[in-house]
Amino acid sequence: MDKVTIELTEYTKDSIDRKSKDSVSEILVCKTSAENSWVDVTGIHDPEVIREIGEFFGIHILNQEDIMNTDQRAKLDLSENGLYIVLQMLKYEEGKISSEQVSLWLTDHCLLSFQEIPGDVFDPVRERLQNPNSKARGREVDYLAIALLDTIIDNYVHILERFGEELEAIEEDLLEHTNNHQLLTINNYKRELHFLRRSVRPVRELVIQLQKAETTYLKGLNAPFVKDLSDHIIQAVDSVELYREMLNDLMNLHQSGTNNKQNEILKVLTVFSVVFIPLTFIAGVYGTNFEHIPELAQPYGYYIFWAAEVVIGIAMLVYFKSRNWL
Amino acid sequence: MDKVTIELTEYTKDSIDRKSKDSVSEILVCKTSAENSWVDVTGIHDPEVIREIGEFFGIHILNQEDIMNTDQRAKLDLSENGLYIVLQMLKYEEGKISSEQVSLWLTDHCLLSFQEIPGDVFDPVRERLQNPNSKARGREVDYLAIALLDTIIDNYVHILERFGEELEAIEEDLLEHTNNHQLLTINNYKRELHFLRRSVRPVRELVIQLQKAETTYLKGLNAPFVKDLSDHIIQAVDSVELYREMLNDLMNLHQSGTNNKQNEILKVLTVFSVVFIPLTFIAGVYGTNFEHIPELAQPYGYYIFWAAEVVIGIAMLVYFKSRNWL
Amino acid sequence: MDKVTIELTEYTKDSIDRKSKDSVSEILVCKTSAENSWVDVTGIHDPEVIREIGEFFGIHILNQEDIMNTDQRAKLDLSENGLYIVLQMLKYEEGKISSEQVSLWLTDHCLLSFQEIPGDVFDPVRERLQNPNSKARGREVDYLAIALLDTIIDNYVHILERFGEELEAIEEDLLEHTNNHQLLTINNYKRELHFLRRSVRPVRELVIQLQKAETTYLKGLNAPFVKDLSDHIIQAVDSVELYREMLNDLMNLHQSGTNNKQNEILKVLTVFSVVFIPLTFIAGVYGTNFEHIPELAQPYGYYIFWAAEVVIGIAMLVYFKSRNWL
Amino acid sequence: MDKVTIELTEYTKDSIDRKSKDSVSEILVCKTSAENSWVDVTGIHDPEVIREIGEFFGIHILNQEDIMNTDQRAKLDLSENGLYIVLQMLKYEEGKISSEQVSLWLTDHCLLSFQEIPGDVFDPVRERLQNPNSKARGREVDYLAIALLDTIIDNYVHILERFGEELEAIEEDLLEHTNNHQLLTINNYKRELHFLRRSVRPVRELVIQLQKAETTYLKGLNAPFVKDLSDHIIQAVDSVELYREMLNDLMNLHQSGTNNKQNEILKVLTVFSVVFIPLTFIAGVYGTNFEHIPELAQPYGYYIFWAAEVVIGIAMLVYFKSRNWL
Amino acid sequence: MDKVTIELTEYTKDSIDRKSKDSVSEILVCKTSAENSWVDVTGIHDPEVIREIGEFFGIHILNQEDIMNTDQRAKLDLSENGLYIVLQMLKYEEGKISSEQVSLWLTDHCLLSFQEIPGDVFDPVRERLQNPNSKARGREVDYLAIALLDTIIDNYVHILERFGEELEAIEEDLLEHTNNHQLLTINNYKRELHFLRRSVRPVRELVIQLQKAETTYLKGLNAPFVKDLSDHIIQAVDSVELYREMLNDLMNLHQSGTNNKQNEILKVLTVFSVVFIPLTFIAGVYGTNFEHIPELAQPYGYYIFWAAEVVIGIAMLVYFKSRNWL
Repeated sequence: MDKVTIELTEYTKDSIDRKSKDSVSEILVCKTSAENSWVDVTGIHDPEVIREIGEFFGIHILNQEDIMNTDQRAKLDLSENGLYIVLQMLKYEEGKISSEQVSLWLTDHCLLSFQEIPGDVFDPVRERLQNPNSKARGREVDYLAIALLDTIIDNYVHILERFGEELEAIEEDLLEHTNNHQLLTINNYKRELHFLRRSVRPVRELVIQLQKAETTYLKGLNAPFVKDLSDHIIQAVDSVELYREMLNDLMNLHQSGTNNKQNEILKVLTVFSVVFIPLTFIAGVYGTNFEHIPELAQPYGYYIFWAAEVVIGIAMLVYFKSRNWL
Repeated sequence: MDKVTIELTEYTKDSIDRKSKDSVSEILVCKTSAENSWVDVTGIHDPEVIREIGEFFGIHILNQEDIMNTDQRAKLDLSENGLYIVLQMLKYEEGKISSEQVSLWLTDHCLLSFQEIPGDVFDPVRERLQNPNSKARGREVDYLAIALLDTIIDNYVHILERFGEELEAIEEDLLEHTNNHQLLTINNYKRELHFLRRSVRPVRELVIQLQKAETTYLKGLNAPFVKDLSDHIIQAVDSVELYREMLNDLMNLHQSGTNNKQNEILKVLTVFSVVFIPLTFIAGVYGTNFEHIPELAQPYGYYIFWAAEVVIGIAMLVYFKSRNWL
Repeated sequence: MDKVTIELTEYTKDSIDRKSKDSVSEILVCKTSAENSWVDVTGIHDPEVIREIGEFFGIHILNQEDIMNTDQRAKLDLSENGLYIVLQMLKYEEGKISSEQVSLWLTDHCLLSFQEIPGDVFDPVRERLQNPNSKARGREVDYLAIALLDTIIDNYVHILERFGEELEAIEEDLLEHTNNHQLLTINNYKRELHFLRRSVRPVRELVIQLQKAETTYLKGLNAPFVKDLSDHIIQAVDSVELYREMLNDLMNLHQSGTNNKQNEILKVLTVFSVVFIPLTFIAGVYGTNFEHIPELAQPYGYYIFWAAEVVIGIAMLVYFKSRNWL
Repeated sequence: MDKVTIELTEYTKDSIDRKSKDSVSEILVCKTSAENSWVDVTGIHDPEVIREIGEFFGIHILNQEDIMNTDQRAKLDLSENGLYIVLQMLKYEEGKISSEQVSLWLTDHCLLSFQEIPGDVFDPVRERLQNPNSKARGREVDYLAIALLDTIIDNYVHILERFGEELEAIEEDLLEHTNNHQLLTINNYKRELHFLRRSVRPVRELVIQLQKAETTYLKGLNAPFVKDLSDHIIQAVDSVELYREMLNDLMNLHQSGTNNKQNEILKVLTVFSVVFIPLTFIAGVYGTNFEHIPELAQPYGYYIFWAAEVVIGIAMLVYFKSRNWL
Repeated sequence: MDKVTIELTEYTKDSIDRKSKDSVSEILVCKTSAENSWVDVTGIHDPEVIREIGEFFGIHILNQEDIMNTDQRAKLDLSENGLYIVLQMLKYEEGKISSEQVSLWLTDHCLLSFQEIPGDVFDPVRERLQNPNSKARGREVDYLAIALLDTIIDNYVHILERFGEELEAIEEDLLEHTNNHQLLTINNYKRELHFLRRSVRPVRELVIQLQKAETTYLKGLNAPFVKDLSDHIIQAVDSVELYREMLNDLMNLHQSGTNNKQNEILKVLTVFSVVFIPLTFIAGVYGTNFEHIPELAQPYGYYIFWAAEVVIGIAMLVYFKSRNWL
């Protein structure tokens, strides 16, 4: 993408104003304004922009670097100027999970959010802000920050539910029949789950730190909402662990299925060969060139031979069937 | 289901009165009454009803949402208006475990319980309440709340015992013989155990929080009963972990059994083929057209040939038997 | 069993008196006596007896229930009237571990013990009590309680040692040869170990609580003896964990052994067949009816044929042997 | 290597001076100098040199030994004279990880570093020191120590990223085809990961101790930078654990792939044999010497025979194909 | 062994005196002497001797029993008379680890050590004591106790290093070829590692307790030396865990190797049989007795037949080779 885009939302209980800004200088007014401001920055590739914003809002130099390096583990840094939070926002499309790093900087009256690319999961929050009766409008920006975290974590739970449904579909498929493609699929899900786990688990620590953080930037009033975040992320981590076990079970199930199928085929083929072995032996006996083989000279010898062969073959099949080998 | 049903039970040491109520407004009197009240709400699909009750009894808005979302992890939320508890009540029918969410709201003189559908495990508590000599009648509603939790957890233990008996039945079955259907059964139990574990384990954390919770809504007098809850849920969690291991052992046992059975069959078939191989070879030798094969011209050649074949075949069988290959 | 039996032992530094009592009323004197008393109740099936004793000695109603329900997890309950301890006493006979629940109620000058059936591991304690020079005689009943726990835990260690010796015997057996019966044996030991573990592990928590319990019912003087209990139970739990790993190793060893044995057999049989395949082919060649096959007409053709067959067969065996396939 | 080399860097906000020193005596001036000094000692094989430096800077005798024994677990020792830190610096060349022990001794105005051999990862720090505007120049030597730790830990992350990329390459390779060489490769990576883990995990404890250490040798000002170290090392340890799981998955994948390939081959070969078995049987039938076999005398018998053989063979192939056995 | 031997070493900064004593009474003087005394008792089979020493030095009766029971878990008991430490001293000879229990009793000016049999790892300490310049001479007996623990733990590390080298040798051997003897070897190492782990892991807890123990018997001055003990034992425990994983990897590697080898053999044998199947079929065809088989009458029929057989056989081999089945 080419250009950093900045969206500034200023709101009070009674009014709301959302504007797109072209340059960093235009948003600086929000710091002194009495209104609550949400500055949503999309695009983190321009160090100059980040540095400019960072300096103005007092973001620690290390957190400025964190904003720009997009493979951060979710974490919370508390400094005297504000609260820095970073975590991964996930997208799940066509069996493939991708992540986009979201950084939040929470300071007096201002919440800054930094995203990598256009498109996010924050639309429900934007709609609630538009609604004059919503609680979000009447509260400080710390409530807004929690609302954003909540949509990200709810999205985890949503993705995990789809993930779980797909695993159950695979299981049902597996119980019906086995093929090599399933192994690739299971392996693919394992990989995606590693990815998910890497994004989701650190968020639990983040939320625990958030619960402990006593700071002027997070009002005590919001404790139940942080507890709610905590409930959701614990549920997400539980699901991740559950799906890991399910995937291992699926691997075992696939292995059992494959083995059983192969063994079944080999067994049938072996039984088939075994039935013919004595038949061929008998044919061999009457192919010997002994001078005195009385059966050979009998008028119906050949037909009796055929009859014996058929009887022996059928007897063997019946026997194998009775022992459950076919 | 169509309609929310509300059952109001008012009791003191000396009297008890149970009534079905049609509308929320009829139960509101219980808050100011001097008697203890148990309001049992069945049906949580009508947000209007929940909101009305919630507002009147001061249930936090997030807990109101928890009541209505039926996939909650067991938890306890302590607020200034009361104590919110949510957990899953289990049912075990025909090898299938299903869950129904139960929410409790414990406040001064009033206990509210919310269930999804008619039918629960609370009948023993209702009977004890009817009995004028029961301890439940003389105590506050916090004792009643513990009694309800106790019946739910006892039900877990009961289900786990049935589960354990069924696993032992499978094990005995497995030690006798192996078939593919057992794999499906074991897999099915694994799935049910995942479900059970997901419901039961968080309840342990809930009970630990309950033990720590120092609140006006839970009298110190009840500590031994909470300790009793704790003993039961720890026992339930122990069983869940034990059954997980047992299921893994059963999987291994099934795999061993299947492998041994298949190997046994293949071994028998192979031994059978091997016995015929030299016999067929000898027949082939006397089927060759060499001009001078002295055995062919002997008068009893054919009979000696047959005798040799039989002797060789039996010798091989005896040998394989002696090496324990049959 | 039919009847509850009660044995009352009263002792001071200078005297000891052991009597069998028929009814609960006869033991009640011990509470006011200046002597130390050990009341050993065998048989817990009569709720009336337990209730009567419980009320007299101030045992909490929940602990009365615990005494009668014989599947309790080991635990310690501290109340103002006394200290309640419950754990499982184990018996190991003919490869089968059975448990008997023992409850202790420790109060001023009195120790009550409750067993399910006659027969226990307490004889060494009884003998020490008879000895006027033993420390047990000069101390309070809390020392006696610790001595009883000590014999129970020592018995765990003793059983685990026998268990370990039997596992080593199985291992040696396995390294020599493999059979299906071993799988049943290993599986049986797994089941017994699950049982052992379920009884032994909670006792560790019990002892930790005992170390922490600051109570008038347990003198500080006894701290080294409780530490000693702790050392023994930690050793027992260590052994349990070790044996779990050993059993898993034995399972793997058995699987390897079985696979190797089966593969060995299949390999030998396959080599056997392979040796005959070209021999039979050659016999087939000389069984063809081509008009001009020069070998057939040679005077020693048949003998050369046999010689060639034998040479080829032996060459193949030598080759397979040299490649270590036989 | 032959000789210990010592590099002394003295710097203030305004000046910097780097010199190579030949003997220990030449560096002793730095202790009393007002400037910050970094003494970088390369070569730890000469106990005399270490003892001389150690005594002058007050390094504890045990830490002097730690400096010389090159298989130390990462750790931090706080004494009254200074702070001792030891950890392993890693190198990753041609699929082989090697380690070099780095010891740091942080005391007033002086930082000593000890390396085994020439060559390290500290060049970025040296460059920053040269830059008069860099933060490193204006701060005390504790900031320099953190900067050195940071480059070492960043190097871990860098190596782990390459490691991860190589594992993914192996996985893709595995999903395409399987060979025995892959097993060696996976095993080799397992060994390297054991090595990595042994070096990396203790560093996490080191950093935790660093965060807790309240000492005059580490200014509170640097807390965000230590937090940054902590974030990086946690990320590294996460990756190590992830790669362990991935390697286990790769092992399983390889095993599945190998099994499937072998089974595939065996299946094809078995089907091939099975097709010929009835054909050979029929040929055997018409090789018998019965006097009256009507088919033999028919003018087109031989051609009909061939046609029948071909039809039967094709029918079997079609059947096996339709059952997905080929 | 027959007799308890007692060695008494009395030392001050300036003098040292080592004597063998025949009876317990001769060592009793050391308690009142101003010098530091190390009483090294070899042989713990005589309860009378232990009781006599124990009473004189105030060793708790339970610790006296610990000294005599040689299967103690490493532990530390702090009493008012002194500090009791017990742990296992290991010996590694011919692939077999054996342990000898060492008890230490640390009290004012006296250190008692109890060993089972003659021969120990304490010679380096004895030599340091002989050296008048050694730190050990100038310090109290608590330093001596730490020095003894240090030699025991260093010996663990030494044994573990040899263990690790042997595991690497097995791994290299395994990567070259597989045989059944390796399985026995790996199993043997597993057993030895269980033993090692049982001895080594409790020592970590012992050292942690030692670090926490605030007692007059252990001077604060020695804290760095206890920290050093701690570093070494953590390293030992790390190695034990690493070797457990390595042994599991070796088991898997062996299993893979064995499977691959068996499969390889079966594959080659199967390919061999498959090549002959069509050849034998063709021979069978020309062994039929149809009256009109034109090929049979052709003058070079037999030679064409042979040529066709050889061409078909070679074509099959080439095809199998090209598909990488040989």
